[in-house]
Amino acid sequence: MHFMTALKAAWQQRDSLLCVGLDPDPAKFPAHLQGRPDAILEFCTAIVDATADLACCFKPQIAYFAAHRAEDQLEALIAHVHARHPGTPVILDAKRGDIGSTAEQYAVEAFERFDADAITVNPYMGRDSVEPYLAYGDKGVILLCRTSNPGGSDLQFLEVGGGLKLYEHVARLVADEWNASGNCGLVVGATFPAEIARVRELTGDMPLLVPGIGAQGGDIAATLTAGRTAEGTGLMINSSRAILYAGKGEDFGRAARELARQTRDAINAHR
Amino acid sequence: MHFMTALKAAWQQRDSLLCVGLDPDPAKFPAHLQGRPDAILEFCTAIVDATADLACCFKPQIAYFAAHRAEDQLEALIAHVHARHPGTPVILDAKRGDIGSTAEQYAVEAFERFDADAITVNPYMGRDSVEPYLAYGDKGVILLCRTSNPGGSDLQFLEVGGGLKLYEHVARLVADEWNASGNCGLVVGATFPAEIARVRELTGDMPLLVPGIGAQGGDIAATLTAGRTAEGTGLMINSSRAILYAGKGEDFGRAARELARQTRDAINAHR
Repeated sequence: MHFMTALKAAWQQRDSLLCVGLDPDPAKFPAHLQGRPDAILEFCTAIVDATADLACCFKPQIAYFAAHRAEDQLEALIAHVHARHPGTPVILDAKRGDIGSTAEQYAVEAFERFDADAITVNPYMGRDSVEPYLAYGDKGVILLCRTSNPGGSDLQFLEVGGGLKLYEHVARLVADEWNASGNCGLVVGATFPAEIARVRELTGDMPLLVPGIGAQGGDIAATLTAGRTAEGTGLMINSSRAILYAGKGEDFGRAARELARQTRDAINAHR
Repeated sequence: MHFMTALKAAWQQRDSLLCVGLDPDPAKFPAHLQGRPDAILEFCTAIVDATADLACCFKPQIAYFAAHRAEDQLEALIAHVHARHPGTPVILDAKRGDIGSTAEQYAVEAFERFDADAITVNPYMGRDSVEPYLAYGDKGVILLCRTSNPGGSDLQFLEVGGGLKLYEHVARLVADEWNASGNCGLVVGATFPAEIARVRELTGDMPLLVPGIGAQGGDIAATLTAGRTAEGTGLMINSSRAILYAGKGEDFGRAARELARQTRDAINAHR
């Protein structure tokens, strides 16, 4: 299924704009999982099973798997989402960016090896570095635009002429040129609601992936006011650490579910 | 050993500015390697053993391993370089870029799991996205600046104020602020010699990784004129496909060696 079709269906059917980020850190796992050979997979599948009906998508962050030589567990995790929770899009958060011939290899990694439905991509190398992902057609390609971290301003907030800052230029490039097949999205941090509003203005109904609520301090009400579309959707609001580590015991799945429900409801209160 | 110390020693001892890029594409391997379980590792170690005394460094591109589920072969390849060719720095070409807590995981992947001596990093997310790599101190951190691909101009050539283009702003940021520990380098494509000269002007003796000769059409003489330091070094001039696939038979190592020697000599003729 086309990523955008699946995402829109999930927004409606689950009544949720919540994206659950899967950034597994074994040092924070409950004691009963410590030291188990597939602890990362066991932890993440428990989170997925506990929250799938409350989320519009999942976003595994590949660095947390790669640092632990756990690519096989990432493959198994995404296969689990597809098998058990069909219709739930999986965004591989990889932020790749390279010349065309290498980007083709990264696209194989994301879409064929890992079977992700969408990938995050860095726009710094320009259009031909993004085309190999766009060529998949039914996959989502989510470009970094205005990131939630403090250093995000170092480049993204530079004035680049025409009254635009670099992040606005990226938003316009993606909306006006790179999105010809309608499969693009943008990353805009919840820590910058004024910029979410500006990106919404530049990109129509384009889906925005919004990290930065929870541990990073972004405000849910301000994010919704700035970024929701006329239909009350258009956002994938990511929460990772707050949900993953809501519980510390054997019932961590239940604690994660409860926090996911609270977060979904807090988001919905402002739609 | 500190990456910069090893690189300078390799420039002198091997009398070479050639970086051999390891972008293994199994479809292009000689027939006798086709279908072998560790074909990627066998191919790359043969290239490494045939060219190590002619190269100042090796640069494996991680996408070519990841697309084939061959991270274990990348680990074994880098271990092979360290064991058999000590003093030859290995740059992991990964172009990572993410917020601090995730960048820490990518740094573990590159420097601990793969034991690389340096990594390429994308600057779009700013300083705190680069600090986890810088924190390793003895490792090299090579930031994308002016890339060799056609789309490189989409963002990197934008005017960002103060008479600077974005790539010049990145060069100055890295040289003046991020390089406090002296472990930074920059990527500048051989397809843009005027910009190599400008980056050299902005960064003093900072090592520049220069892709784009060979298959991409960059000019060796122009690259050297623009980028060499007063000592006749300062450059890691990358060639990947031209060397890797110089031969198609069982003697592909010999053909790669011959082309690496010609390339090194062509570079040295302009130092």
